[in-house]
Amino acid sequence: MAVYTQVDDAELIAFLATYDIGDLLSCKGIAEGVENSNYYLHTSAGSFILTLYEKRVAEADLPFFLGLMEHLARRGVTCPQPVRNRAGAPLGRLAGRPAVIVTFLDGYSVHHPEVAHCAALGETLAHLHLATADFEGRRANALSVDSWRPLFAPSAGRANEVEIGLRETVEAELDHLEKNWPRNLPSGVIHADLFPDNAFFLGDKMSGVIDFYFACNDAYAYDLAICLNAWCFDDAHRFETEKGTALLSAYRRVRPLTAAELDAFPTLARGAAIRFLLTRYVDWLNVPKGALVKPKDPREYLAKLRFHQTADGFL
Amino acid sequence: MAVYTQVDDAELIAFLATYDIGDLLSCKGIAEGVENSNYYLHTSAGSFILTLYEKRVAEADLPFFLGLMEHLARRGVTCPQPVRNRAGAPLGRLAGRPAVIVTFLDGYSVHHPEVAHCAALGETLAHLHLATADFEGRRANALSVDSWRPLFAPSAGRANEVEIGLRETVEAELDHLEKNWPRNLPSGVIHADLFPDNAFFLGDKMSGVIDFYFACNDAYAYDLAICLNAWCFDDAHRFETEKGTALLSAYRRVRPLTAAELDAFPTLARGAAIRFLLTRYVDWLNVPKGALVKPKDPREYLAKLRFHQTADGFL
Repeated sequence: MAVYTQVDDAELIAFLATYDIGDLLSCKGIAEGVENSNYYLHTSAGSFILTLYEKRVAEADLPFFLGLMEHLARRGVTCPQPVRNRAGAPLGRLAGRPAVIVTFLDGYSVHHPEVAHCAALGETLAHLHLATADFEGRRANALSVDSWRPLFAPSAGRANEVEIGLRETVEAELDHLEKNWPRNLPSGVIHADLFPDNAFFLGDKMSGVIDFYFACNDAYAYDLAICLNAWCFDDAHRFETEKGTALLSAYRRVRPLTAAELDAFPTLARGAAIRFLLTRYVDWLNVPKGALVKPKDPREYLAKLRFHQTADGFL
Repeated sequence: MAVYTQVDDAELIAFLATYDIGDLLSCKGIAEGVENSNYYLHTSAGSFILTLYEKRVAEADLPFFLGLMEHLARRGVTCPQPVRNRAGAPLGRLAGRPAVIVTFLDGYSVHHPEVAHCAALGETLAHLHLATADFEGRRANALSVDSWRPLFAPSAGRANEVEIGLRETVEAELDHLEKNWPRNLPSGVIHADLFPDNAFFLGDKMSGVIDFYFACNDAYAYDLAICLNAWCFDDAHRFETEKGTALLSAYRRVRPLTAAELDAFPTLARGAAIRFLLTRYVDWLNVPKGALVKPKDPREYLAKLRFHQTADGFL
């Protein structure tokens, strides 16, 4: 749920005049993405999404994200495409913010993914990874193993507010992951946040991927582990074997996993669990009283971590 | 800024199956209206708005609002049109809420209305009033003169938190208005909340009116006074004569004002100021700490009230 910046109609009309996409017909703030302000934009040339980048996205990273979306589309991975302005640039400024217009993508997020959705996701994710192989942009993963302890440490003393014993669980897990984190797996640009919210479907068919603002260079199999955690557990946070198998099999049909990736997968899955456990934990402690946006419960990812701690070899 | 209720894709697809408007292609929560949850809905038949009614709108009033929108459109006043489902009903249920689908209206709100916009508004408002003359629905104005004192009384003691002397100003004004409120002016269904947010334009041309959820039976000229206050003051809350003249002249060309309406107008304008002063005052005091939605400043309407208290006879 977003829309932080109000856009004045006169400013918007002036901004649109720098593009070749017709006249303004409608513009409505939409509740999509949590990092930026997004608007459904209708012009005489069609439908678009207008995005204003808020402070949480570093302006220096924008060429990487926009270049990645253009690159993926050229390789057949459907995602929003930046529209270039009359000067040929994908990035402009509106209401004091960096701003882009991207193509509108039909499709809707699936709240309770079925086996067929997990299979479609696996196939798309593998295509996405193959497509990034020759992408020249680079962006470090600021939320990988080395960042987890510094992320947790400042508020470790409040862990009991979330669950008794959480501090000990997290610190023991960080000890384990820092010792055992795999370092030389096949890598490239990964989405790093491909939750059901960021995948569009039309029926069982995946129609597109959105929200690349966590994309970075890291192990492909880590991206797959993030998806397994996000898509293949039920509402009570129990692993659903059939969905997990569907995701992994579909992925492996397009991009086979190496022996090292298979070997490392349980560790990657634990790491993918602690990464979202920790960011949710920090958000949970820092939510302003009375805020309209309910933070996501970090305990969901504690349950997933516990599953992976004991489920070695489910692949 | 709205979107309170999350709609599950499976529920939405089942809901759409009760309509004859094709298959779901996209549905995005939009930041429009403050009383309800609204979604931009794209189907294979076109674009629509899906509205879920939250608790602030009484379900018993919905047939009045929906009937009014259908009536106005038949009389040539452009506004969203409820789409009837296969059973012929405009109202259904989705996610536990009363729900309607209405046609999508192109146009955008003007943040700083110019003289031409005020003239277009006056013409549209007069047409709207004439068009309601033969509408059979009735709904009392729950926010008219008799409601203002009970609205203010419970929190009158906190008025100094907003501005020193506010309590005395409001109570003296209520004394004046209760004694002088005109009771037999030409009446019918009025919009009662036609702020710039609720008027759509394409250039200088008014393309539609939205958000009828305060519509009620009351004096036509009171609706005009609400618009004068909302459209014809600058950002420093100073009256802009040219805009006020444009609004009133355009209105009177379509629907002439009677002598009684002209005579009562200064009183109606003071009442229209205190009505929004008081609801904003109550919202201002009751905003939760840290809430993302910033309440509107009641002092804007205190400034407008003071203008009308001293500007007798500006018509």
